[in-house]
Amino acid sequence: MTDRKTYDVVILGSGPAGLQAGIHASRKNASTLMLGRMDNSSLYWAHIENFCCQLAVSGEDVLNTGREQVESFGGIFRDEDVLAIEPEGTLFSVHLESGETILAKSVVLATGSSRNKLGVPGEKELLGKGVSYCVDCDAGFFRDQIVAVAGNRSAAAGGAVALTRFASEVHLYCDTLDVADGLRKQLVETGVTVHQGVKIKEIRGKTGVESVVLDDDTVREVSGVFIELGAKGVLELTATLGVALDESMKYIETDKKQHTNIHGIFAAGDICGPPLQMAKAVGEGCVAGIEAANHARKLKNEG
Amino acid sequence: MTDRKTYDVVILGSGPAGLQAGIHASRKNASTLMLGRMDNSSLYWAHIENFCCQLAVSGEDVLNTGREQVESFGGIFRDEDVLAIEPEGTLFSVHLESGETILAKSVVLATGSSRNKLGVPGEKELLGKGVSYCVDCDAGFFRDQIVAVAGNRSAAAGGAVALTRFASEVHLYCDTLDVADGLRKQLVETGVTVHQGVKIKEIRGKTGVESVVLDDDTVREVSGVFIELGAKGVLELTATLGVALDESMKYIETDKKQHTNIHGIFAAGDICGPPLQMAKAVGEGCVAGIEAANHARKLKNEG
Repeated sequence: MTDRKTYDVVILGSGPAGLQAGIHASRKNASTLMLGRMDNSSLYWAHIENFCCQLAVSGEDVLNTGREQVESFGGIFRDEDVLAIEPEGTLFSVHLESGETILAKSVVLATGSSRNKLGVPGEKELLGKGVSYCVDCDAGFFRDQIVAVAGNRSAAAGGAVALTRFASEVHLYCDTLDVADGLRKQLVETGVTVHQGVKIKEIRGKTGVESVVLDDDTVREVSGVFIELGAKGVLELTATLGVALDESMKYIETDKKQHTNIHGIFAAGDICGPPLQMAKAVGEGCVAGIEAANHARKLKNEG
Repeated sequence: MTDRKTYDVVILGSGPAGLQAGIHASRKNASTLMLGRMDNSSLYWAHIENFCCQLAVSGEDVLNTGREQVESFGGIFRDEDVLAIEPEGTLFSVHLESGETILAKSVVLATGSSRNKLGVPGEKELLGKGVSYCVDCDAGFFRDQIVAVAGNRSAAAGGAVALTRFASEVHLYCDTLDVADGLRKQLVETGVTVHQGVKIKEIRGKTGVESVVLDDDTVREVSGVFIELGAKGVLELTATLGVALDESMKYIETDKKQHTNIHGIFAAGDICGPPLQMAKAVGEGCVAGIEAANHARKLKNEG
């Protein structure tokens, strides 16, 4: 089994959290492998204006720069996904898409939070051009404009309420509103227009969102569409490792040093829960990268 | 007392943590006041290469960009320091250098960690050009070079040990080494040269550090000088508020949402302890800014 390469730190995900973890782990002289396809990062398609201290830049540029930084400190990238991770003594064996298996002393989970898609025409094409999966990130772009929100539950209803502080009109489209009474009352008080039993079946626009087509074929002019169907669970990857989730059962639980409940497994970024912001992701990535490198060094010294 | 201006969020410190808090608070439509002089930030004098996702940039440029961002979202800057903060009902009164007093619904403490200075000629002039207050940040610049460390205690000794992974020679200058046996042993094992009873009295160099002058007037060639005298306490500001410190008694204790033990007071960045990294600072600033804006809005709704 000596033909399997061993890395000090293996990082799953090469969005901002993973990149920052990679910068700090490799700066600490840990051999560092970054896994995952860059265009998997939700940031890849985004436009960034709320991250200190860079003026408006594209997500793609930001990620490319981060990659350059990691490489300059000696980190290695492989653009492939991970199929499974298993404990192996004090190490972890990581099974790659290519069929290869490698060993890791520390693993940093930074695969983000894949948002559930609405799955309608225009959604992918207009992502970052009026289509958003994050009210907290993007509400400010829609000051005095008309926006639509899609979703049945608290993420959508809460998002709609928050949007009323910016947008001139907020329309919530849902099958059946499934929220607590308090939130239902807030929807009324803040003037959100709730369209129950109405679905968005298409998002239209040329350079940005211009309208949504509803399932009764009416067309409504909107400048933004927020898709808030709740974040997809990270249960698949964590189940085999026994990594504990937080109370929401959607995100990985960590302490302030980004340690999970499993010794040697760290997590950072959106996978650890809201706020789903680039700044928080790099902050957690920094801490996770340093801690992962320290853990690997301790194993080395003990071994 | 109605002539005192009330802000939703008042942020002390305009380094990366404060700026990121300001971006997120003002993005959430909270009226936001930033206090403190920009050149107080240790980043102002620094050169940055380990922050995702910007290639080597100057600290001054980064801070100016962050300030532009905060202002673009409506945040206001006043370049003056705070003399005292006192609770006033559910609000806080903030006494400014100018003599004015303002009211804050939420306060974010982001004043960083002022490092104790060695106080020798060349220290200030060569800061960021070979003089550093942070081994974790800057060790990587000194690969295969000779470095000096100044300090008596664990920060200095631990830093010297860490530097041996990069530097070709590490010299620790101290009055009397005051560390635990384990660390003393590590100093020997890693080959740190300990000079007890020897002080650095001058740091010399033109564009970068070239040598240190010791108090017996010998000159030793070094490329870097790490000053690790321990971070200065933040006790002064927090004492009047009753803000709790962490176990080290040097940093402010917060939960993962950056709340201190005092309702309405948040903290972010180096003031919350290591790693003293820009990435961690902006991550905590992001969370603190959002939470501070939420707290202010809750007061508004209740009031």
